[in-house]
Formats: sequence, structure tokens, C-alpha cells
Amino acid sequence: MTLQAIPFTQVQIRDAFWAPRREANRRISLPLSLDKLAEAGNLRNLELAAAGATEGFVGPVFADSDVYKALEAVAYSLATDPDPELERRVDEIIAQIAAAQRPDGYLNTAYQVKIGLKRRWTNLRDNHELYCAGHLFEAAVAHFQATGKRTLLEVATKFADHIDSVFGDAPGERMGYPGHPEIELALVKLWRVTGERRYFDLARFFVVNRGRKFFADEHGTPHEEYRGEYWQDHLPIREHAAIVGHAVRAGYLYSAVVDVAAETGDAELLQMAERVWDNTTNRRMYVTGGIGSSAHNEGFTGDYDLPNLTAYQETCASVAMMMWNQRLNLITGDSKYADILELALYNGFLAGVSLDGRRYFYVNPLASEGGHHRQEWFGCACCPPNVTRTLASLGGYAYAASDRGLWVNLYIRGGARAQVGGQNVALDVMTEYPWDGKVQITVTPDAEAAFALHLRVPGWCEGASVRVNGLLVSDAPLEKGYFVLDRAWKPGDAVEMDLPMPVRRIGADPRVAEDRGCLALARGPLVYCVEDCDLDAPVAALALPAAAEFTAGPELLGGIVTLVGNGETGAEPEWRGGLYRTAAPLVPVAVTAVPYYAWDNRAPGGMRVWIPTIPPPPATRERGE
Amino acid sequence: MTLQAIPFTQVQIRDAFWAPRREANRRISLPLSLDKLAEAGNLRNLELAAAGATEGFVGPVFADSDVYKALEAVAYSLATDPDPELERRVDEIIAQIAAAQRPDGYLNTAYQVKIGLKRRWTNLRDNHELYCAGHLFEAAVAHFQATGKRTLLEVATKFADHIDSVFGDAPGERMGYPGHPEIELALVKLWRVTGERRYFDLARFFVVNRGRKFFADEHGTPHEEYRGEYWQDHLPIREHAAIVGHAVRAGYLYSAVVDVAAETGDAELLQMAERVWDNTTNRRMYVTGGIGSSAHNEGFTGDYDLPNLTAYQETCASVAMMMWNQRLNLITGDSKYADILELALYNGFLAGVSLDGRRYFYVNPLASEGGHHRQEWFGCACCPPNVTRTLASLGGYAYAASDRGLWVNLYIRGGARAQVGGQNVALDVMTEYPWDGKVQITVTPDAEAAFALHLRVPGWCEGASVRVNGLLVSDAPLEKGYFVLDRAWKPGDAVEMDLPMPVRRIGADPRVAEDRGCLALARGPLVYCVEDCDLDAPVAALALPAAAEFTAGPELLGGIVTLVGNGETGAEPEWRGGLYRTAAPLVPVAVTAVPYYAWDNRAPGGMRVWIPTIPPPPATRERGE
Repeated sequence: MTLQAIPFTQVQIRDAFWAPRREANRRISLPLSLDKLAEAGNLRNLELAAAGATEGFVGPVFADSDVYKALEAVAYSLATDPDPELERRVDEIIAQIAAAQRPDGYLNTAYQVKIGLKRRWTNLRDNHELYCAGHLFEAAVAHFQATGKRTLLEVATKFADHIDSVFGDAPGERMGYPGHPEIELALVKLWRVTGERRYFDLARFFVVNRGRKFFADEHGTPHEEYRGEYWQDHLPIREHAAIVGHAVRAGYLYSAVVDVAAETGDAELLQMAERVWDNTTNRRMYVTGGIGSSAHNEGFTGDYDLPNLTAYQETCASVAMMMWNQRLNLITGDSKYADILELALYNGFLAGVSLDGRRYFYVNPLASEGGHHRQEWFGCACCPPNVTRTLASLGGYAYAASDRGLWVNLYIRGGARAQVGGQNVALDVMTEYPWDGKVQITVTPDAEAAFALHLRVPGWCEGASVRVNGLLVSDAPLEKGYFVLDRAWKPGDAVEMDLPMPVRRIGADPRVAEDRGCLALARGPLVYCVEDCDLDAPVAALALPAAAEFTAGPELLGGIVTLVGNGETGAEPEWRGGLYRTAAPLVPVAVTAVPYYAWDNRAPGGMRVWIPTIPPPPATRERGE
Repeated sequence: MTLQAIPFTQVQIRDAFWAPRREANRRISLPLSLDKLAEAGNLRNLELAAAGATEGFVGPVFADSDVYKALEAVAYSLATDPDPELERRVDEIIAQIAAAQRPDGYLNTAYQVKIGLKRRWTNLRDNHELYCAGHLFEAAVAHFQATGKRTLLEVATKFADHIDSVFGDAPGERMGYPGHPEIELALVKLWRVTGERRYFDLARFFVVNRGRKFFADEHGTPHEEYRGEYWQDHLPIREHAAIVGHAVRAGYLYSAVVDVAAETGDAELLQMAERVWDNTTNRRMYVTGGIGSSAHNEGFTGDYDLPNLTAYQETCASVAMMMWNQRLNLITGDSKYADILELALYNGFLAGVSLDGRRYFYVNPLASEGGHHRQEWFGCACCPPNVTRTLASLGGYAYAASDRGLWVNLYIRGGARAQVGGQNVALDVMTEYPWDGKVQITVTPDAEAAFALHLRVPGWCEGASVRVNGLLVSDAPLEKGYFVLDRAWKPGDAVEMDLPMPVRRIGADPRVAEDRGCLALARGPLVYCVEDCDLDAPVAALALPAAAEFTAGPELLGGIVTLVGNGETGAEPEWRGGLYRTAAPLVPVAVTAVPYYAWDNRAPGGMRVWIPTIPPPPATRERGE
């Protein structure tokens, strides 16, 4: 990568926004996730595999991956917030995992206990062996980095070596790639932590072969009848132009694509990723930064098809968007990717978990008629540990560094420690972001040092300004969306950013039929929504006239800045009168909007992100002839 | 009928609204219409028929009907405004008609000159023989009443006798009815003026047999394959429930239905007419009172299908609506029918002719992109003479009388003379209607007389009030939509109506998809529209926010009251930016609206009746991948 992310272990988060969420994550979500894995039988699967059992497996074929993701999440948390009890539970589970591993390194309880080892690697399309392996590798890297223990890393490398012996271009190795990408980016991490280049090469093998319609061959489907979109296997990887198929698979795949392009300098691969990104963000992404319109394929349909009530926008897909966009930001240094990262983080992703850390959304619609609520766990439990691992490692998304510079992508009170040009530099950040756009950064190198501090000017922000030591830097160059302060920094130099945060009224490209004639409210990085419990009229009947003014309003739910203004609703729920009549006057309605991420944390009811600027027509009842 | 219309010859029109239109009608339109009939060859067809020619016929099979309608129009005009030159031209044409008539009474130049007499009455469905006869009868009645001359009446009765000898239930007579209804209501008129009951019986025969699928039999179409909707021949007449098929045919048919029901007391027929009227006015009528959504069949499609840009709304169909609704008003005494009569008259109908009387609309869309303009004449010239005969006899729609009462349906400066309970009564009307809702009526019986004066309270009016001799009649009973002033009237009694005329914003039943999210402006009986030439923005991009206030504005086009207010338009004609962006502010636009009837009398350009309450979305241009 051109830039390196500053590891989350070097980042402090001490704000009123994220710190409580991370606290709930650590105290509530993480222990609960381990409990749930025990309850749901995922851990029992490991015991059965260790015992050589051939029946009793429970859950989906990818049940192991939920265990690995939960371990990854706990490991991140242990790295910043040591917790002996959690660490003990992790060690226990790791021991179960190690016990379940086959002598040849193979490890997959679904195959070991249920499907049968003879059939391993025979259905890469559907059965998630490589996907589970990937999550094992990510967990192992996290655990090793957090604790220095090699227990899980050894399981991982043993399995990786086994996989490497099976797949590849060398004589005796075979073609294949995972139905659900994941192992590719995990192998890159495993390579980085072990220095074992074979792992990177295997990741590259899986990436560059994608699209050769391997799944058609695996299942005896004639190529001309094969529709590989669901698995992003429809076209040779270098020819991909639009984002298609299962959204999480796509996000993980293109993350790995950027990893491979960064290491190999493969410009064609990078161009493909940017092309697909253009398609994604200009045609197939929700205003909340999430992706995946359809429950049918848990993924994409067509350009501009972004239904709200039936939006899928899986929480995992928002995580995938963060991963992919961070990588694009690091390789290009362009803030437009960090903009999308921020958008997905604060909105599509963060809605995925309740404020108390106890309940999760798998599916994140942008409108609800009142029946959609977070749940404690899921039979397909991919989303909860994806939430917990992201919150636990959140700081890793905030800063980046190169030899000559530092980049601030997310504004979070706390700070970071980094090395720039051989100097240790501390950034101490004071801000009430995302509620307020004033950001004070104290720059403290060990000694005076020349480097460029890159401060992201969010794409949503107009009129950003920056001061150094109290003086307005009116000529600060704006490069790739960053204010660049390239100077000799002395300990204690004070930088002040001002990112004005008026309430924004957002419109959608008119080709998004669902949002035509509608507005969404936003402030700073947050997209807002309106819930029934804040209105005197059903949110389904609400309109926000184009001229409605909204301002930041009183706080709710312990510190959430609301937006208040006036809406309108139709005076009559039902059309009365003949074919034409004098239009009923509209009734003003006081409106309070809350951030989208915070919805469904109070009384259940309807919710909308996109609000029409005129009230929906009254209902009509069929009259007798 | 329960009520009798006061003949237009007993009605004075001396206002600034209709009188100039009638003057243009008499001085410009009527002479021009005779010129056009000569130019187009319609009169030459008569000469050819008189000469026994068998080639040279020009025009559609119903070419004769345009001649008859023009004569009817001129006759009406002669009755109120003698004009020796016009009368001479009429006499000349009547002589041509008489010369063309066959000795047996048959008269149809298309058959005589072109199709061949052997084939007469063989294609009632398509060839308009009975339709043309009907217009002959209407012209003859008008000419006889206007001039006392029997020249055309004798042609008419001779032809009617011939038709009566062909069609009917008696031995030797045959089944049949016209593909295009018209003769039915004409025979009723002919009966009234001649006293010859056979003509009424024949009208009734044509009416009550309709729907027995005669046209299927005539053309050898199996009944199960026959779709008779176009000719209102789909169901036995008494079972009709919805208005279907060709709009003018339907309107003429149901007018005759009411005529027959009125004379025979046939309650079932009347109930059917009311049922079809409910369907028409609650589901299939434009806000302008016109009917016929589709050019395809010049008629109806389905409930609530009322497109604006492609509205057909033939001028003749608005005339038919006036005829049908007047008859329903007279038989029921209910003002709701006069409301529709007024609506169609002031809007759908009146738009049919230019202010100068020189050009006509055949098709009256409710929106135009700028390419729709009135024309001097048409190959199918049904509409111009329908306009001229309606304007020439306009007074006949305004008043009605019974033995005990007088009814005022239209408020037009001038007055009427009538007999009520054996007394001659003069009504003198002073008003600026439709521009102002104050109406002063001086009631002058020859001597004091007790009768009920029924003053229509328009359905569009709220807060109507009435005074007699300066005193508010706060307890005036409202019966069937009329204020009823039942008292002993003395010569010079002064009645003052006040019909408040604020600007009304009209909404449509939400099932009218085309008008959803749109408003129309109206004031008094007039529906307004907005034309490009009055706007600084294209009317296609205009929005009228729901809260927009409109008031009566400066006059245009010699006395037309405009409506002025503020609209909005999008700031950008084309969407710029990505999938989501801060909504562009709306730009205020000063809006002047003119009555719908007055559109296309100035610079050509776009026009809309229904204006969305939010601007249409900006255009999008496909971006490259």
C-alpha cells in the first residue's frame, strides 16, 4: 500500500460517541457472543470433531466461521483492554479448535462431523471450507498480535499449509477458489504476520483465477448455461465492471483484489476495482453507505434499484464496504474512499447493533412499517461477530501513515501514536465529532520534525477551514480531499479544523425511482431517519416540504443530537369526495429526526430515511358501482 | 321532463364573457363554416347527388352531417340575430339538399354518389346514414323554429317517414340502430315540433334495442367474439353500468336515453343513465368536464385512466356532456347535473374554439409540450359546427321552468322571459360571472305571482348567500343544490346572490395516477392552466408547492381574469453529482395562470392544467461506465 493504516493498538478512542459503544461491545456483546456460540452448538461442533464423531453437527456449513470471528473480536479487545476472564474463555476455545484439527492440518467441523472428509474440497461453491479457513486465519493473526500467543496461529498456518498444498498452479495442485471470498484477504494478513510469501501467492491465485467459471466445472454446468454473478464468477476478474451478486462476497473479494494489486503493482486489477467502485457508489449504494438491495440473493440487482422498505443492506456488507474502501484509500491516498468508509461506518454499519450491545440487525432496511427489530442472535450468525470485531478494532480505520506523512481519516476524540520519517509522533485529538465539526489536534513529535499532516475534508462538508497555532491557513493545499499541512512540526503544535455541520437535505439521482420526490436529512457524517415514536402522525404519512428548515435539536438517548423541524401530513387518511375536489389543507407536524444508526432503540414503530416532500395520497376505498 | 328548458330564443345574453364569443361565432365562425363546407366539397356532394352522379363524392361517409350541423348553427343564430345574407346562403343550401333527396325520401350523398343505393342500410355500424339523418332532423327543427320556413323540415319528415318505414317492430320492418347514435335525440325533437308520435316511437325503438349485438349480426361476427363496447353495443342498454367506447357516441346515446325515459316514465332506463353518469363523473371525466381519454377509440379506457398530455377530450364530447347533463338536470331537477354542464361548457367545450372564432381544437389535451394548436378546419369536421351550434343556442342551457317554478342554472348577464303558472315573468340578470360571483336578478312578473325561484348554488361554491330586496334570506332552503325562494313575487323584486369565488386548489382522487402529487387551479366555474408564455421557466419544470397562495390577478386578452402566485422550479435542469448529493435549492417562479379555455391564443408553447407540487426531477444523462 502507498499508506499504512496505523494499527488500532496505537489509537486511542476516548470520546462520548464510540467509547461507550466499545465499552458495551466489550462488556456486553463479546461475552454474550461466546455464550451464544456455546448455546447454538458451534463450540459443541468442535468437540464432536475432536472426538471423531460423525453425527451431531448443528448449524450451517459455515458454523465454524462464527466462532473464529468472535475470537477475532475478543482478541482485538484484549489488545486494547486486557480482560483475564475473556482471555481465559478464548484460550479454552482455542484449545477446542486445536483439538479438532486433523493431523494433516484440515479443519472444518461440518465436513469432519457431517459431510464426511472424503468429500472435502468437492463443493467450493457452496460449502464454505475456504471461507471458514479465512476467518480462522484472521482470528489467529488477531490473537497472536493481541496476546503474543501462537496457539491459534499455529492451527492457522498448519491449515494454510494444507490448503496451499492442495490449490495452486504447481504440479499436483488444483484449480479452485472459494464460493464465498474471505480467505484471500485473510491469507494476505497471514503472510504479513508470518512473512510466509506462499500465503500471499495463494491469495493471489484465488483472486486472479476468479471468473474462469470454475463453479460451472465443479458442478457440471455447461458454461453457456452458467450464471456466475452470485459468486462474482461471471467474468474474468479483470473484466469486472459492475458490482453483482452477493454483496458481502463482493466486498470481501474486492478488498482482496486491492491487497493483491497493492503488493504486485497490478494496475489492471486496481483499475478494475476502481471501476467497480464507481458502479457501486454511483448506482448501487444506499445513502447510508450500505449495499445489497435484495434479500433474494443477499445482494445486488440493477443500477439505481434501491428499494427502501425491502432494502437488504446486510450489516456484514457495510463491514465489507469499510474494508474495501479503507484499502482503496490506502493504495490511492484519495479521501473519496474514506468518505464512503465513514458513511458506511456511522450509518449502515452502526445501525447493526443496539445501543446497549445486546441486539443486532442482520438486515437494515431504510424504511420500516414497524415490524423490523434487532434480535439477540441469528441461526446464520455472521453479522454479530462482524459488528463486534469491527468495533473492537475501530481505531484501525482512523489514521494512516507513510514515510513522509500522517493521514487523519476519522475524527474521534483520543489520538494516535505513529512513526513518521523515523520520528515518533503523537496526535492528541479533542472533538465532539460527529456531533460537532470542531477538531483540535495537538501534534507532538519527539523532536521537531518535517512531515505532512493530511486532514480529511469530508465530502459532505462545505467551508472547511484549518488553523495552526491559532492562525488561519487560508492557503492550505487541498490534495485528494485532504488539507495538507506540510511543515516542520514542533511538540505541542496546535491544529484546529472547523468542519461546518449544517443540517443537509439530501436528494437522490432521479434514476433511483424509490427516492424520487423524497429528501433525506443528514448532518455531518450521520444520515437521519424519522421514527413513529417522535411524531404525532404516522411516519408513513409524513412529508417534509422542500422548504422545511431543520436545525440540531435537543439530545435524546443519552447524547444523540436530534434534528427538529416542521413537516406536513395529509389532513385526511382517506380520500373523501368525488373524482376532483378542493384539496384538503395539509396539517403541520413537528418532526424530530434521529440518526439512522439509533433507530429501533425505543418504542417500536414505523421508520423512514427518505421522506417525500409531499404527503402520500390518502387511501382510497373502492366504491360500489 | 319534469322541467322544461326555457328556449334560447327567450333568453338574452348581454355580458362581456359570452356575448363577444357569440358575436365572433355569428360574424366569423358561421360564415367561415359555410365557406369551408363549400371548399371541402360537402356542398358539391349534394349537387352530385341531385344530378344523379355516381362518382366524385369527397370526404368521409358522414360528410353530409357537417352541412346539417352548420345549418343548425346558422338557424339558431338567425333566430336571435337576423342576418339576411346568412339566411340567403342557408336557403340556397337547403335547396341543394332538397334537390338531392330521393323521391322515396332517402338522402345520403355518400350512398347516392359513391357507395350505391343498393347497399343502403347494409352497414349501420360504420356508415353513418342514420347519424346523418339525425343531424338533418336537428337542423330542420332549428331552421323551422328560427324562420318559420318548412323547406328543410319537409325534407326531414320525408326522410324520417322513409326511415320509419324501414326500421321497427311492425311487420315488414327490420331491426337496426345507428353505429353512431344521434338520430334518437333528433327524432325526439322532430316529434316535438311536428307532433308526429311515430318519430318518438322510432327513437325509442333505436334506444331500447341497443346492446342486442345487432352489429355482430350485421357483420357476421359470432356473438362470443364480438366486442361491442366501441358502439355501446356490449350489453343490453338497461344493463349498462360504466361508460365505454367512443365518447361522443356514448354522450349522444345517453342523452336520448333520458329523452325516452322522460317521455315514457321508464324508471329502469333513467336509473341506468344515472348509474353510467356516476361512473363517468366519478371515474372517467377530466377536471375540465370533458370525456374520452384515448385517441385510439376516441373514447374511454378504464376507470381513473385520465392521461393529460394524450387526453383526447374531443370538443364534440364536451358538447355531448352538456346535452346529456342538461337532460338529466331537467328530468331530476338536481343541480349536480347542471354543475357538470357548467364545468364542461366553461372548460372542455369552450377551449374548442379560439377567442377570435377562427380556429378549433378537435382534441383537447390537458397538457401540451408546445406542439398542439387550433386549426381552421378538419377533414373530419364534426367539431367546428358543434361549437358554433352550441354557442348560437347557448341561452337554452341557462334556465328552466315548470308550472310552479323557475330555475336558473347558468348565471349570465342578460335575462329570460318565461311563463310560470300562466304568468309571464321576466328575469333580468346583472353579473360579471364567471369573473365575479355577485348576481343580481330582477324578477318582473306581469302581476304579483306566487312561484318558486330556484337558484343554483354551484357545487364549487362554499358560503353562497342570497338576499331578496336587500334582506338576507338566511333560511333559504337548499333543495337539490338550489336555493329555493318560494314567495309571492311582485314586479321589480330584487334578488342578489353572492357566490364567493376564492381561488381553489383542486386535487384528484389518488387513483388517477397521472394527477397524483399535482394540483389544478380553479376559480368559479373556470379551471385554469399555466402556459409557457407567462413563465420565466418551462411549464414542464414548474411546481406549485402545496402552500402556494394564488389570487385573482391582472386581466389579459381583453378581460380574462388571471390567477397569480408563486411557484417553484428546480435550480438545475440536469442532475449533477453522484448518486446522492445535497438537494439543490428550488428557485421561486412568478406564475400567471389563465383559464383553460383561453390557452393557445397567444405565443405557442407548453401548457399544463395539473401542476406537480414538487418540481419534476432533473434530467439524467447516462454516464460512461
